[in-house]
Amino acid sequence: MIATTTEIRVRYAETDAMGIAYHGSYITWLEVGRVRMLDEVGLPYRELESTGYRLPVLEVHAQYFQPARFDDLVSIKSIMNQMPTVRMRIDYELHCADRLLCTGYSLHAFVDNAGAPTKPPKHLLEKLREHFS
Amino acid sequence: MIATTTEIRVRYAETDAMGIAYHGSYITWLEVGRVRMLDEVGLPYRELESTGYRLPVLEVHAQYFQPARFDDLVSIKSIMNQMPTVRMRIDYELHCADRLLCTGYSLHAFVDNAGAPTKPPKHLLEKLREHFS
Amino acid sequence: MIATTTEIRVRYAETDAMGIAYHGSYITWLEVGRVRMLDEVGLPYRELESTGYRLPVLEVHAQYFQPARFDDLVSIKSIMNQMPTVRMRIDYELHCADRLLCTGYSLHAFVDNAGAPTKPPKHLLEKLREHFS
Amino acid sequence: MIATTTEIRVRYAETDAMGIAYHGSYITWLEVGRVRMLDEVGLPYRELESTGYRLPVLEVHAQYFQPARFDDLVSIKSIMNQMPTVRMRIDYELHCADRLLCTGYSLHAFVDNAGAPTKPPKHLLEKLREHFS
Repeated sequence: MIATTTEIRVRYAETDAMGIAYHGSYITWLEVGRVRMLDEVGLPYRELESTGYRLPVLEVHAQYFQPARFDDLVSIKSIMNQMPTVRMRIDYELHCADRLLCTGYSLHAFVDNAGAPTKPPKHLLEKLREHFS
Repeated sequence: MIATTTEIRVRYAETDAMGIAYHGSYITWLEVGRVRMLDEVGLPYRELESTGYRLPVLEVHAQYFQPARFDDLVSIKSIMNQMPTVRMRIDYELHCADRLLCTGYSLHAFVDNAGAPTKPPKHLLEKLREHFS
Repeated sequence: MIATTTEIRVRYAETDAMGIAYHGSYITWLEVGRVRMLDEVGLPYRELESTGYRLPVLEVHAQYFQPARFDDLVSIKSIMNQMPTVRMRIDYELHCADRLLCTGYSLHAFVDNAGAPTKPPKHLLEKLREHFS
Repeated sequence: MIATTTEIRVRYAETDAMGIAYHGSYITWLEVGRVRMLDEVGLPYRELESTGYRLPVLEVHAQYFQPARFDDLVSIKSIMNQMPTVRMRIDYELHCADRLLCTGYSLHAFVDNAGAPTKPPKHLLEKLREHFS
């Protein structure tokens, strides 16, 4: 199991006319959490791309509990509960202080530069295995 | 059952470095479909807001099948399968020509101006009932 | 001189906590106007890209007069006042009904697939020349 | 003169099909820089809002020199060259390492909760004066 936490501050651009963060903004925040997780694992997404891999999103889900507001400091916890196979699933928990804002998950495929499905890169699996043994 | 269809064209702003529409862009497109559905039902969201209602998103889900690209004409089918109670659920199917791009749903609460949960507005239920009888 | 007009409706995603359309949303709307202009000229941007050209933005400017609100119908007038040379400039005027919302312009270069500056494509100049003679 | 610097990392959501950061993303980054500047001055925008002020954007300008790419660390320098009068102008310089990406400025009005133009709040002017004496 891998869990990493990163923080963002809500931008004005991310709010909407309800006076709170637009629900779609959270989808981008999940991306921020996911990218930081791969950084911490030691295999930045940028590097994955440069070695010919892409991790397109197959599925995304978010459940909203409390609103975030402009300038709120939102902590994004990203959790990988199991080793990726042909799919990689990441779960998320977003908090502002001790308020739970949102939970969600994203499901990803591994594809090569041509967009064809492929196995997860070996060096990614090796890096991840350290965390699951 | 209510089903309405609207169309958008993929903006460059909505694409990402994979050369396709960013998965988060679809969440906004679901909103476009939902707003158009309320228009067609005869109760524009704008009017709902002006009479003191908000329909915040409780949950959103999207599953991606095929990518959309810049300038693609995407049709957004929004479907209400059952009358709203304290919750309103809308399902979505997005196509580009005959390619299925994405399916999803959103779940909404009804709240008043102060953010307190409330029953769906009577005039909305009346309008909807015509479609479910 | 070429002038084309297209319309968008303000999405909830494009509003902010001031209750109006976020000023950055207009920059995307300028793109929508520009893309539609190239469509009407008979040389869609998509086609320009497929023949190896890109028109990156060198400069963008917007001046805001009146706010747009959720669901407002915004008309985007895009104007090309002179034939492109190594640069292409487009001016914009955005209205909601008879209210002037915003004026602006964008300045573009022509680059090839490798990102190197290049002359505007001949077929674009030919199409444009019809409008400037 | 006040100058503050903050950093963002380019999100995948902020890239486009050219493989670089979408030009409109920079407009949001200017906002991030501006908000951080007000924080450092000791008068967070959030507080300004809670005391009944808004600083809508009257004008925004950006000039692009080099592209930013996904995951790039972009430093945003925000500069206030003169004390605000009825208007406030902020200039920006964006770098990635030693590459200049973008320069720009934004011009703001001060308005009250009702949207009527007003003088800048006294406590803001006092805070700023310390930097201009």
